[in-house]
Amino acid sequence: MYNYPNKKKSLKNQENLSNLNKRGLDFEEEINMANEYYVSNDIAHIYKKPTPIKVLKVKNTTESFTKRTKIIDAFFEKKSTTDYNGIYKGRYVDFEAKESKEKSFNLKVNLHAHQKEHLYSVSRHGGIAFLIINMKKYGKVFIVEISKINKEQDKLDYEFLQDYGYEVNQDSTIYLDYLKIVDRLIGE
Amino acid sequence: MYNYPNKKKSLKNQENLSNLNKRGLDFEEEINMANEYYVSNDIAHIYKKPTPIKVLKVKNTTESFTKRTKIIDAFFEKKSTTDYNGIYKGRYVDFEAKESKEKSFNLKVNLHAHQKEHLYSVSRHGGIAFLIINMKKYGKVFIVEISKINKEQDKLDYEFLQDYGYEVNQDSTIYLDYLKIVDRLIGE
Repeated sequence: MYNYPNKKKSLKNQENLSNLNKRGLDFEEEINMANEYYVSNDIAHIYKKPTPIKVLKVKNTTESFTKRTKIIDAFFEKKSTTDYNGIYKGRYVDFEAKESKEKSFNLKVNLHAHQKEHLYSVSRHGGIAFLIINMKKYGKVFIVEISKINKEQDKLDYEFLQDYGYEVNQDSTIYLDYLKIVDRLIGE
Repeated sequence: MYNYPNKKKSLKNQENLSNLNKRGLDFEEEINMANEYYVSNDIAHIYKKPTPIKVLKVKNTTESFTKRTKIIDAFFEKKSTTDYNGIYKGRYVDFEAKESKEKSFNLKVNLHAHQKEHLYSVSRHGGIAFLIINMKKYGKVFIVEISKINKEQDKLDYEFLQDYGYEVNQDSTIYLDYLKIVDRLIGE
C-alpha cells in the first residue's frame, strides 16, 4: 500500500478526536485547553471561575517541607454566576458549559434560575452571553446565545439547537475552537 | 439649640463614614457592597471571583440534617488573575483591590507579576483595567488604570496616585461608588 502522508495525518487526527470523545475527555478540560491556547497566543483572555468554597476551619501545617495553610473543614457553595467569563475583541464574553446525554437539553434541571438571569443581564448590557452544550448522544457541541432562548422555555430540542445554535467545529488545531462561533455572534 | 435636619443628617452620615474607616470595615466588603448595589439596580454586573482552592479529599456527611459533601483536605491556590471582573455599559471591567498602610503603594510586593500582566492584557484588548487602592494612612481610595503604570515601576507614591489616579468619592448613597470613576475612564 502507498503512503499518503497528508491523508494519513488527517485520519490520525480524526482518530484522536474520536478517541477523545470516546474516552470522554472532560468537556470543561477541552474548554480550558482552548482558553489556554487563546491566552498564550494573546487572542482572548477568558478564564474559568474557581468553584466557590466556604472555608470553615484551617490548620497551619509544615507538610511537604513547606509551611502552608491546610483547609480541614469546608463545603462547596452554590455558584452565583456562570462558569466562564473574559474579554475577546474588546467585548465581554460570559458563558456556561453544559453536557447532556439525552436527545434534548433540559434547561429546567441543568441551568439554575440565577445563572439564566445572569446571562440575560449580561446580554442586556451588551455582552456576549451563551450556553455551550455538549450533546453527547450526537457527539456534537453547540453554542446558543441566551437571547435566542425564551424565558419560559424549559428544554432545548436537538432541532432547536440546529436551527438557533451554532455547531462548534472540532477539526482545527484547537480542539474546541469556540471563538470562531463567537466571531459569528459578533458579526450578527 | 435649633434643629437643622439636613445639616444634622449630613453630619451623621459623615460620622458613619468615619466610623467605618476607623473600625476598618473590610475594604473588599465595601467593594462587594457596591457591586451588590450595582447588580440589584441593574447598573453593572461585576463580581468577586472566588478564591481558588485545590480540593484533595472530601467526605459525605449528613451534618445539620442535610446530606452534603464536606471538604476535609484542601489548600489555597495562587490566583491566576485578578479579584474582580464584569460588565459595565457594554465594557469589560477588570480590577484588583489592594490596601496599604504605608505612604506609598509597593507594587513589587503587593501585586503578582502574572496579575500585572493580566491587567496589561485586558487593557490591550480594549477592557477597562485598573487597581483600586485603599491608602489607609490618608483615609483615601484611589483608582489607577494599569495603562498609567510603567512596567518597570515598583511603587506608586502618594503624589503619583494624586496625579495619575482618581480619588473614589465616599459620600454618596453607595459607600464606595467606584463606577463614577469608571465613567471618567470611559469618557477619556
